[in-house]
Amino acid sequence: MAEDRLWRDLMALAEITDPASPYTRRCFTDRFLEGRRWLRERFAEAGLATRVDEGGNLIGRVEGREPGLKVLALGSHSDTVPGGGRFDGPLGVLAGLEVVRMLRDARIVLRHPIEVIDFLSEEPSDYGPSCVGSRAMAGALDATLLGQCNSAGETLAAAMARIGAQPDRLGAPLRDDVAAYLELHIEQARVLESGGIDIGLVTAILGILRLEIVFEGAADHAGTTPLDLRRDALVAASELVTQVRRIGEQYARELNSAFVATTGRIEVFPNAANVVPSIARLVVEARAEQARTLALFEDELSAASLAAAAAARVDRCVFRTISRSEPSPCDARLRAHLQAAAAGLSLTTTSLASGAGHDAVFMGRLAPMAMIFVPSRDGKSHCPEEWTGPQACQAGARVLYEAVLTLDADLAYG
Amino acid sequence: MAEDRLWRDLMALAEITDPASPYTRRCFTDRFLEGRRWLRERFAEAGLATRVDEGGNLIGRVEGREPGLKVLALGSHSDTVPGGGRFDGPLGVLAGLEVVRMLRDARIVLRHPIEVIDFLSEEPSDYGPSCVGSRAMAGALDATLLGQCNSAGETLAAAMARIGAQPDRLGAPLRDDVAAYLELHIEQARVLESGGIDIGLVTAILGILRLEIVFEGAADHAGTTPLDLRRDALVAASELVTQVRRIGEQYARELNSAFVATTGRIEVFPNAANVVPSIARLVVEARAEQARTLALFEDELSAASLAAAAAARVDRCVFRTISRSEPSPCDARLRAHLQAAAAGLSLTTTSLASGAGHDAVFMGRLAPMAMIFVPSRDGKSHCPEEWTGPQACQAGARVLYEAVLTLDADLAYG
Repeated sequence: MAEDRLWRDLMALAEITDPASPYTRRCFTDRFLEGRRWLRERFAEAGLATRVDEGGNLIGRVEGREPGLKVLALGSHSDTVPGGGRFDGPLGVLAGLEVVRMLRDARIVLRHPIEVIDFLSEEPSDYGPSCVGSRAMAGALDATLLGQCNSAGETLAAAMARIGAQPDRLGAPLRDDVAAYLELHIEQARVLESGGIDIGLVTAILGILRLEIVFEGAADHAGTTPLDLRRDALVAASELVTQVRRIGEQYARELNSAFVATTGRIEVFPNAANVVPSIARLVVEARAEQARTLALFEDELSAASLAAAAAARVDRCVFRTISRSEPSPCDARLRAHLQAAAAGLSLTTTSLASGAGHDAVFMGRLAPMAMIFVPSRDGKSHCPEEWTGPQACQAGARVLYEAVLTLDADLAYG
Repeated sequence: MAEDRLWRDLMALAEITDPASPYTRRCFTDRFLEGRRWLRERFAEAGLATRVDEGGNLIGRVEGREPGLKVLALGSHSDTVPGGGRFDGPLGVLAGLEVVRMLRDARIVLRHPIEVIDFLSEEPSDYGPSCVGSRAMAGALDATLLGQCNSAGETLAAAMARIGAQPDRLGAPLRDDVAAYLELHIEQARVLESGGIDIGLVTAILGILRLEIVFEGAADHAGTTPLDLRRDALVAASELVTQVRRIGEQYARELNSAFVATTGRIEVFPNAANVVPSIARLVVEARAEQARTLALFEDELSAASLAAAAAARVDRCVFRTISRSEPSPCDARLRAHLQAAAAGLSLTTTSLASGAGHDAVFMGRLAPMAMIFVPSRDGKSHCPEEWTGPQACQAGARVLYEAVLTLDADLAYG
């Protein structure tokens, strides 16, 4: 049964893990390459012609019957975070493989070529960047990123060369022949599960703004310094944490698009019970469906941090953008195909934004892209408890299959 | 000149320091013992009979002329924090020595015996406890404290034995023959300096309450988890930090006695930009002149922490007293003698509480005690910049001297 076939593949790939820390298949490790060899064999068995491109992506391809048409691409990634799960990444790759097998079972040859792509290092590796392979394909893996080193001093470029990529041939986009990119992924949140919904139709992948904010006061004796003479950096930082939450709740309530804001990191110096904190450093992250929302948040947080500093008589000595990625909207036409496919299969759907980043962000620079989500139990991901059952995985693969069929008939990208 | 003599001693003892990190004379180190040898020689030169008691305290003594009277004791400590200053501790010991030398210069033999005490390890050492010697003298150094180890696994008892103490003879108070204890110390704050005042008459040494509070929520993905589904431990902790400050300001304003409250430590897990914090641990410290104020603060903070936890939908899983020391009031009669002495020397005075702990806390369990402060430049202490000028040091010593004379005439403790 086809349902069993996809599930067996998911469980088999999961077995290729660092045994001390399931499920771990870190990019650039021997274990990762073992997973890739296994994947390449499955691709070949399904009739896919395989290659590794200049960006280190493993690509399986079946030619179409009309020459000159662009590619329908499906994919995700087979690498994991340390101690991660069995679905984040592998599901999108193996569901793509399953779509090809279902086409073969039905003796269908598409008009367009179809490719299944295992993108290199979607998860941030010890070398730093995430989405290495999809960045490379989109021409967005620049010399600075390629020159970043792991703790042993090896550059990302050297690591990529080691696994078969050609980093010196990167720079421009690698492809201009992609008609559309579709990616199936687990939701990594609880919206589908809590609503009892089968399929999430992703509206956009949220843009991410990360800010570093540092307050500096004075490290006075906590016993001898009266409150009105203190310059307590933690008092200012704590006020800002509550403001981040307040502004976040206001935006989530008032805006007609997805928004979250988080203070995930705080570091305090000297961090001793009997010393007034002199330095407090925060990392604040905001994710939004609209670029202008991120700009608005940044302005409002800047004003709030200055006010918090003034109230605590400390300096806001740093207010810096660590990184910023713009929101990536999913293509409306592709979403319509995916929605129709789900409806045809009697699967319930809802529209939702993706709070997490994906390879689809960079594929969206090359071609129209869209994503679908299947439910994650308890919303858990990046941990061994990550779970999406066999039926839900198969439902996602079937939506991809049906959408590929209608897209193939509808599109004719030359 | 006497002023030069005290100052020369302060500067000479300061030279006995770890050269890599002036001014460092950590208790139980060779450097500390070198300082003690130097001090013992100065004591002997001034005609003091010296000994090390069972608690490791170096005691210099001159007998009085009336047999059977109790002792007038002066003292402080010669050990320092790492990278500390030249005055916190040494000033009180060397000013005591200077008082004895001034008596000898004036050919005065007191009715009471007089002692100058260098208490062992007033600063917290690698073994843990502070005020080791004065605790021992007061019978407050119990088996638990004596059994604490440094990082090399040596017990405090073994370390004390190594420097000449007799830890197996500790338990009960070592003394019942002290008539009064006086201690001169630098202020370690800015009240005297900012008011241009010569001498601080200490009303009490504040009681210290340290609380550990831990909030536990859930470590969700910061991109995919809507705000209303989050259980963010840092949001609760930040609210509590602002409440600690608010309650502190209210008490400082409304109460007729000294109060400070500080959140000095915060630890967050997993402390990553893209993960909602699941655990936040705070250490909150309150210092108060009245025991009932500490009880009131603890109750109010408990309620505030439960409210903060409920608002952020997290658990307040720990609310624990780490340590509690009761306030130690200074003896009114001794304070009157010190005030009269300062007035007789045309020195300006103010009454103030000591936010820092001192050996006087434990000496107060054996006998009436009182302290005076001299100004600290910029309020700095526990750092190389710690500074009190020669005239201010000498002014403190002269107040001690005049007060000793009137006390000796006034008291007749048998």
